[in-house]
Amino acid sequence: MTNTSAVIELTKDLISRKSVTPLDEGCQELMAKRLTAAGFNNESMVFEDTTNMWARRGTEHPVFCFAGHTDVVPAGPDSKWHTPAFEPTIKDGWLYGRGAADMKGSLAAMIVATERFVKDYPDHKGSIAYLITSDEEGPFINGTTRVIDTLEARNEKIDWCIVGEPSSTDKAGDIVKNGRRGSITGDLIVHGIQGHVAYPHLVKNPIHLATPALTELSTEHWDDGNQYFPPTSFQLSNVNSGTGATNVVPGELHAIFNLRYSTEINDDIIIKRVTDILDKHQLNYEIKWTFNGKPFITGEGKLLSAVVDSIKEANGVDCTPSTAGGTSDGRFIAPTGAQVVELGPTNATIHKVNESVNCQDLEDLVEMYYLIMKKLLTD
Amino acid sequence: MTNTSAVIELTKDLISRKSVTPLDEGCQELMAKRLTAAGFNNESMVFEDTTNMWARRGTEHPVFCFAGHTDVVPAGPDSKWHTPAFEPTIKDGWLYGRGAADMKGSLAAMIVATERFVKDYPDHKGSIAYLITSDEEGPFINGTTRVIDTLEARNEKIDWCIVGEPSSTDKAGDIVKNGRRGSITGDLIVHGIQGHVAYPHLVKNPIHLATPALTELSTEHWDDGNQYFPPTSFQLSNVNSGTGATNVVPGELHAIFNLRYSTEINDDIIIKRVTDILDKHQLNYEIKWTFNGKPFITGEGKLLSAVVDSIKEANGVDCTPSTAGGTSDGRFIAPTGAQVVELGPTNATIHKVNESVNCQDLEDLVEMYYLIMKKLLTD
Repeated sequence: MTNTSAVIELTKDLISRKSVTPLDEGCQELMAKRLTAAGFNNESMVFEDTTNMWARRGTEHPVFCFAGHTDVVPAGPDSKWHTPAFEPTIKDGWLYGRGAADMKGSLAAMIVATERFVKDYPDHKGSIAYLITSDEEGPFINGTTRVIDTLEARNEKIDWCIVGEPSSTDKAGDIVKNGRRGSITGDLIVHGIQGHVAYPHLVKNPIHLATPALTELSTEHWDDGNQYFPPTSFQLSNVNSGTGATNVVPGELHAIFNLRYSTEINDDIIIKRVTDILDKHQLNYEIKWTFNGKPFITGEGKLLSAVVDSIKEANGVDCTPSTAGGTSDGRFIAPTGAQVVELGPTNATIHKVNESVNCQDLEDLVEMYYLIMKKLLTD
Repeated sequence: MTNTSAVIELTKDLISRKSVTPLDEGCQELMAKRLTAAGFNNESMVFEDTTNMWARRGTEHPVFCFAGHTDVVPAGPDSKWHTPAFEPTIKDGWLYGRGAADMKGSLAAMIVATERFVKDYPDHKGSIAYLITSDEEGPFINGTTRVIDTLEARNEKIDWCIVGEPSSTDKAGDIVKNGRRGSITGDLIVHGIQGHVAYPHLVKNPIHLATPALTELSTEHWDDGNQYFPPTSFQLSNVNSGTGATNVVPGELHAIFNLRYSTEINDDIIIKRVTDILDKHQLNYEIKWTFNGKPFITGEGKLLSAVVDSIKEANGVDCTPSTAGGTSDGRFIAPTGAQVVELGPTNATIHKVNESVNCQDLEDLVEMYYLIMKKLLTD
C-alpha cells in the first residue's frame, strides 16, 4: 500500500468537495465521469435541493447495486480539528477529513473496485448499478426514496445491494449490517387543568396523571427479539410540562418517545399496545405518530454469503452480521424486495471532529467489493 | 352610602398613584400625613428599592397593628380594561382600578376607621400601629421581613395584627384567614446517561428512572390536616427533560414541585420523606429546597373573637375562618408571636383586568376595623 493509491486519491478528491448535506458539490459528476468511462449509463435525478444519481452498466438481471451518499454532516468547530475538515490529510496510516468514513471512502472504493472488475470481466452477468444521493444526512425526503419511487414506477428492480455505510468496529468487514430495526416515534400530549398549586382541588395535574402511564410504557416487555434482532426497545426522549413558575400547575404534558423494533412486532401492534396503556390510565390525550422505517432483514442467501466470503478472502476477518444501531437508506431499498447488506469502514469517528478512515481498510474494501461482484456476476 | 364618602375618596386617591411593585408613588406619605394628624409617630424604612412604613400611636402594650401593602401588580393589557387601570371609576356600586381590592381599599378603610376611633377614644389602651410595605407583590425581600427584623432587634412586639388582604368571597367578612399553610419548593435534578435511542444498552434514561419516583411522590399521603388545615398537598409544577431531538436519550431530568403543608408536618419531615422516596428508587439526584414560609395559625382567642363579632355587628355576616389559599405577609409577622388575622374585601378580581371593590364592602370594612379596635383597645 502506498499513500498515492487510486482509492486514496479518489477519497481525497471527494473529501475536498465541501458537500455538507444536501449539497453534492460535484462529487456525483466526478463519479459519473469514471463510471461512463467504465461503460455505465448515468442518470442524474435532481429533486428539490437534492442531487441523486442512478447509474447502470448492463440491462440484464440480476442487478447488483452499490448505494451510498455524497453528502456529509457539518464539520463542527474548526478549532477542534487537528487538520482542516475539508483538506484531506494522511497521518500514521489514517486519512482525516469530514466524510472520510461516512462515506466518501466507501464511494471511492466502489468506483475503483468497479473499474477493476469491468476491466477484468467486461462481459459480466447481469448489471452493475449505483444509487447515490446527497440527502442521507438530511431529512431523506428527496433522496433514495424518490429514486426508488422512480425505479419502481418503471419496474426497474435491484436484486442485491451493498450500502457503503461505515458498518465496521475495529477492522473493515468485522461487522456488516444485514438488516435494521424498525423505528416509530410517538408525540404525546396529555391534557389536564391548569391552576394555582395552592388550590389543588381546582386543578388536574397532567404530570401526576401521566407519570404512571409513562412508567408502564417504559417498563413494558414488547417482545423477545429473534435470531436477527434484539428485543424491541422503548425510549422516552423528551418530556416537558410546566409554565416555568413554581406555583402553577400546568395544563398539559408533552412527551416524545421512540421504539426501535424487531420483525416480531409491527407498527399496528405497537400503536394498539401504546394506546391500550394510555386508555387504561384514563388519560385525556392526543398522539401523533411518525413512521421512520419498517424493519428489514437479509438472511442467509447469495448476497450475505458473497459478502462474508469476500471479507474473509480480502483481509482474513471473520464477519459478524448485525442488525444493531441506527437507520440507513437500506430501509428504503429493502422493501422493494432487494437483498441489502451494509459494508463499509469503521465508524468510531463518524459525525465527530477529526473523522478518519484507515488507509489499509480502504484498500481492503476495494478488494471486498471486487470479490463480491466477482462471486455474484461471474460463473 | 354616597359615592363621596371618606373611604371611597381615599381609595381613589391611592389607586390614582401608579405604585406598581416595588414602587410606592407617595401612597405611604399620604397615609402618614393622615396618621400624624391622628397622633401617630411615623418611621419610614427604605430598604433598597422598597418603601416601608412603621407608624405607632402610643407606647404601651397590647400593640394592635394594621398590616398591608401599597404596591400593586402590573395592570396587564390596557385594551382589556373597560376603564383606565389607574383612573378609579365607580360604576353600579363598584369601584374599579388596579389595587381597588388588593389592597388600597383596605388601606383606606384602616385609615378612616383609625381616624374615627382615635377621635372617639383618644385615650385608648395600648397602641395602634401600621406596618406597610411596597413589595408584597414582589420578591418580599426588602419589605415586611426587614421591618419585622428591625422591630425584633429593638424588641418591639406586635400582639394583634389585622392584615388587609382581600380575604372575602361574596361579601366583606364572609371569610377571614386565621392562618396559612406552609410552602416549600423542591428543585430536583435526576442524572442519567445520555445517548442514542438506537443503543439502549449504552444509556441510562433519566425519564424512565424518575417517573416511578415522581408517581410515588404525587400519590403520597402526607397527613390528614387538622381542624384548621386541609391535608398537605404536593404538586409537580414543572418537569423537563430532553434535547429536543427525537432520537437522543437525555442525560438528566429536571423537576420542580411544591408542597402546601399543614401544622401536622414540617420542613424537616417533608425533606426526609421526599429524600427517602428518591433514595428508595436508587436515583442519582440533586435537590435544592426553597423555604417559602412556615404554616401559622391564630386559633380561638381575643383577636379572632373580636374579628368574628365585629363582622357580625357591622354587616350581619357570619364569618368563616380559613387557612386555604396562597401566602401573604402574615407569614412573616406570625412567627414573632403575634396573633394574625387577614380581613379584607372580596378577591374575585384581584390580579386580573378590571379589578374592583364593592363600595358598600369598603364602608363595612371601616366599621369592622373600628369595632375590632374598640373591642381590643377599650374597656
